[in-house]
Amino acid sequence: MIPTQNPRTGEAAPTSLHPTEPREVREIAERASGAARQPRRDRRGLAVLLDAIADEVERRRADLVETADAETALGEARLMSEAARAAGQFRLFANVVREGSHLEAMIDRAGDGPAGRLPEVRRMLVPIGPVAVFGSSNFPFAFSVLGGDTASALAAGCPVVLKAHSSHPRTSALSLDVLQTAAGKCDHADLIAGIVYGQAAGSQLVQDPSIAAVGFTGSLSAAQALESAISQRPAPIPFYGELSSLNPLVVSQAAASVRADAIAEGLFASITGSAGQLCTKPGVVLIPHGPGGDRLVNALAERFRHAPGATVLNGRIRDSFHEIAGRLRAGHGGRVLAAATVDDARGFAVTPMLIEMDLPVVAESAEECFGPFAIVARYGDHGEIVDVVERMAASLTVTLHTVGEDPLLTVVPRLEPHAGRIVFDGYPTGVRVSWAQHHGGPWPATNTLHTSVGATSVRRFLRPVAWQDAPPSVLPLELRDEFDAIPRRIDGELHLAGSSAIRHGG
Amino acid sequence: MIPTQNPRTGEAAPTSLHPTEPREVREIAERASGAARQPRRDRRGLAVLLDAIADEVERRRADLVETADAETALGEARLMSEAARAAGQFRLFANVVREGSHLEAMIDRAGDGPAGRLPEVRRMLVPIGPVAVFGSSNFPFAFSVLGGDTASALAAGCPVVLKAHSSHPRTSALSLDVLQTAAGKCDHADLIAGIVYGQAAGSQLVQDPSIAAVGFTGSLSAAQALESAISQRPAPIPFYGELSSLNPLVVSQAAASVRADAIAEGLFASITGSAGQLCTKPGVVLIPHGPGGDRLVNALAERFRHAPGATVLNGRIRDSFHEIAGRLRAGHGGRVLAAATVDDARGFAVTPMLIEMDLPVVAESAEECFGPFAIVARYGDHGEIVDVVERMAASLTVTLHTVGEDPLLTVVPRLEPHAGRIVFDGYPTGVRVSWAQHHGGPWPATNTLHTSVGATSVRRFLRPVAWQDAPPSVLPLELRDEFDAIPRRIDGELHLAGSSAIRHGG
Repeated sequence: MIPTQNPRTGEAAPTSLHPTEPREVREIAERASGAARQPRRDRRGLAVLLDAIADEVERRRADLVETADAETALGEARLMSEAARAAGQFRLFANVVREGSHLEAMIDRAGDGPAGRLPEVRRMLVPIGPVAVFGSSNFPFAFSVLGGDTASALAAGCPVVLKAHSSHPRTSALSLDVLQTAAGKCDHADLIAGIVYGQAAGSQLVQDPSIAAVGFTGSLSAAQALESAISQRPAPIPFYGELSSLNPLVVSQAAASVRADAIAEGLFASITGSAGQLCTKPGVVLIPHGPGGDRLVNALAERFRHAPGATVLNGRIRDSFHEIAGRLRAGHGGRVLAAATVDDARGFAVTPMLIEMDLPVVAESAEECFGPFAIVARYGDHGEIVDVVERMAASLTVTLHTVGEDPLLTVVPRLEPHAGRIVFDGYPTGVRVSWAQHHGGPWPATNTLHTSVGATSVRRFLRPVAWQDAPPSVLPLELRDEFDAIPRRIDGELHLAGSSAIRHGG
Repeated sequence: MIPTQNPRTGEAAPTSLHPTEPREVREIAERASGAARQPRRDRRGLAVLLDAIADEVERRRADLVETADAETALGEARLMSEAARAAGQFRLFANVVREGSHLEAMIDRAGDGPAGRLPEVRRMLVPIGPVAVFGSSNFPFAFSVLGGDTASALAAGCPVVLKAHSSHPRTSALSLDVLQTAAGKCDHADLIAGIVYGQAAGSQLVQDPSIAAVGFTGSLSAAQALESAISQRPAPIPFYGELSSLNPLVVSQAAASVRADAIAEGLFASITGSAGQLCTKPGVVLIPHGPGGDRLVNALAERFRHAPGATVLNGRIRDSFHEIAGRLRAGHGGRVLAAATVDDARGFAVTPMLIEMDLPVVAESAEECFGPFAIVARYGDHGEIVDVVERMAASLTVTLHTVGEDPLLTVVPRLEPHAGRIVFDGYPTGVRVSWAQHHGGPWPATNTLHTSVGATSVRRFLRPVAWQDAPPSVLPLELRDEFDAIPRRIDGELHLAGSSAIRHGG
């Protein structure tokens, strides 16, 4: 039996769910494999499916939020907004699929080269195959069963097999029902292949020969265990991991001087929102020496001192919070600037905490502490900022607070190699889901070349195929001469939709 | 000292080249790292560099070909054509860079969302960092120092460090001189960071913290050794390997009936051209039972019986040819249909050979035998074709010979998951280098998601970055409002060059 825990009390209650048996995992994977063998999916049908899922998420939002709040303690406001984001993601991908650029359709017509006839080559991206989607603890909707990996895999036309996160099994089961209910009214319902529960089932799943790619959000250690399971496969498959991130945030001398209080307010909200359990939480804050910096540090510390207690998602996160916070203090000389005086005893409650460390120690020893926690370090000149960012692990984001043509802007080129997104005068949390978004970065932030958020995340689940001198009947519709409903590249030239049908005899 | 060997005689001669010392490998990698830290490269300057390299390859083609022929025995005609292809690749990438779609520039303007202000997000691909390019034995130009990995990495704006293949050290040194001579007249000469010789230097190179990606063409075992070296890095990096491929070719009943002789002729040329040392060589030929198939097998065998001897690139390939051909015959019941009666004694000569195996044995035991060698198997119905292709390792290509609305075309959807390129009524060798080409496929053919040939191979060496609410001064030129010289996506809508400047106040 799989239990569900109430983070606010720590109490566990039984569910009707069970760890998925090996035989059943195999059956679900085989079902996904069967779905992958079906004839080509039409783009419009996939868009209808994605929109139907968005509708169903919205229709059942209250129920989803209530269930998720009992399992995660993330609170109604945050969860309502997250469910809206999840619905929005499905709608974004419906638009992506309808627009059709993501297929990267290209046609090079036959011609004559120096060594004789050049064959015709037509290329398009096709679904990579069944995708295993691992739910995350901290986003029960937007990075779980109803999350971006599911939406982008379906947009690619890939069957999905879900792995429920142990922090919210009931939410996961309910989310699967949302998916299946919506899909039941559409074509392509077979793309929702099923869900598995339990760590052993997850490990079996990624080793199943049917699975062609894995999307995962979680800790570095959990990711490494999965990667090691994947490496035992005869044929390696892509593993898209969303792991840990320090997200340095740098405040310029000028910004500290003119808006210390406003930055303290925004930063506090960004560090402690969702109990600090966001992968883009600014974990390392670099503040200049001097009176502006002092005022910012004091204002931030003051807010931490009066912070209400925070409830984290599960006992593992709570224990890890205490362990890492302890290591940074005792082991690496972190000085507590402020900690709220709240009672840690009940459920998975933790005390929001701000510590200060010396810059060289941050460069060597900073590590992500998931929860309402941040490290402050003071800097003297811009060289120190570059040095610490270069020596720390790369991140999903780097943020700068500047004023006008601030001298701090000159370090941006040196910071770019160490993050996927550079944020100015704002906060890295609250990721916009849109066409141009990039949520990734150099290792270990996540895959260097791809993103887990935004329209282009669909690229992770597509692979190119080229057809050489193919009869039209075997070609995908989008590659046929007379088709022009999506953007295509013909003989190297990009054509917008409505303008790219191939004219013959010209 | 690094020796050079003449494959026609097997004799080794000294060169002035030496295995690169560990200290020097570090220096070259550090130089590459320095080049990666330079300010953004302008697109037009990169295009000028690529065109200049193409010019220099053409100017010195005779010298390159003479040097390479002495080291590879590939012959003047093939090498002249390969050098032309290498020059053409640099020109293609100059066009790619000028056109600018490869940067995937996107702008989502600020707006209002249900949860408040949506920040502006601008996204573009940037160079991934220094790329280690490993030369291949079988393409001294087009997949080596002057090859597609070098051209696409430079097009991405990445510094390159070359690793010379031991089969053609003098060609590699001369090729580096070609690169450096051309680059010396241009901006961005620092992108040519240097070359290393020797296996130890190659292994050190991929573990160097400066290196951000590896392009490799060669055997599965060599690739696995490199991947194991890479896995020892604290931060994993992309490894783009071009490994082994069986490239099944299927002849339909109708095609065997109407053009057995023509297919025998084309197939023989495809199997034995370049001494069978092409990654796209059709290694497994599926021919129907019946009189048409019989005639095709006989015509093909006849050609093999009268084939001239072939000289392979080095002793390792010769020994491996004998070992694998022996294993397929003695171990797996392969019957020799035809072998040329040539003298194997001199240099790295081998005997072209055609063997026949039973279909179920092919499915279980077929392996790539690099050199003038192919396996023939006879089939009865289309189910057998699907079964054997599904059970063999995936390939770079699958080829079908059909006639009109041939019933064999119905199996195409079942074959697509197992190859990167589907060729109709032609041969997989002689890969066209163009915008739409895809040279890859599911493991072990090479990376599933990317290609090593064609315009889109540049994507391997680019990574996305998003800038949120950035001041224009820190943005790449291509992401600024007033720029419109490349295709861009603005608020989800694709704009062609010349039409995508952002108008304000509208």
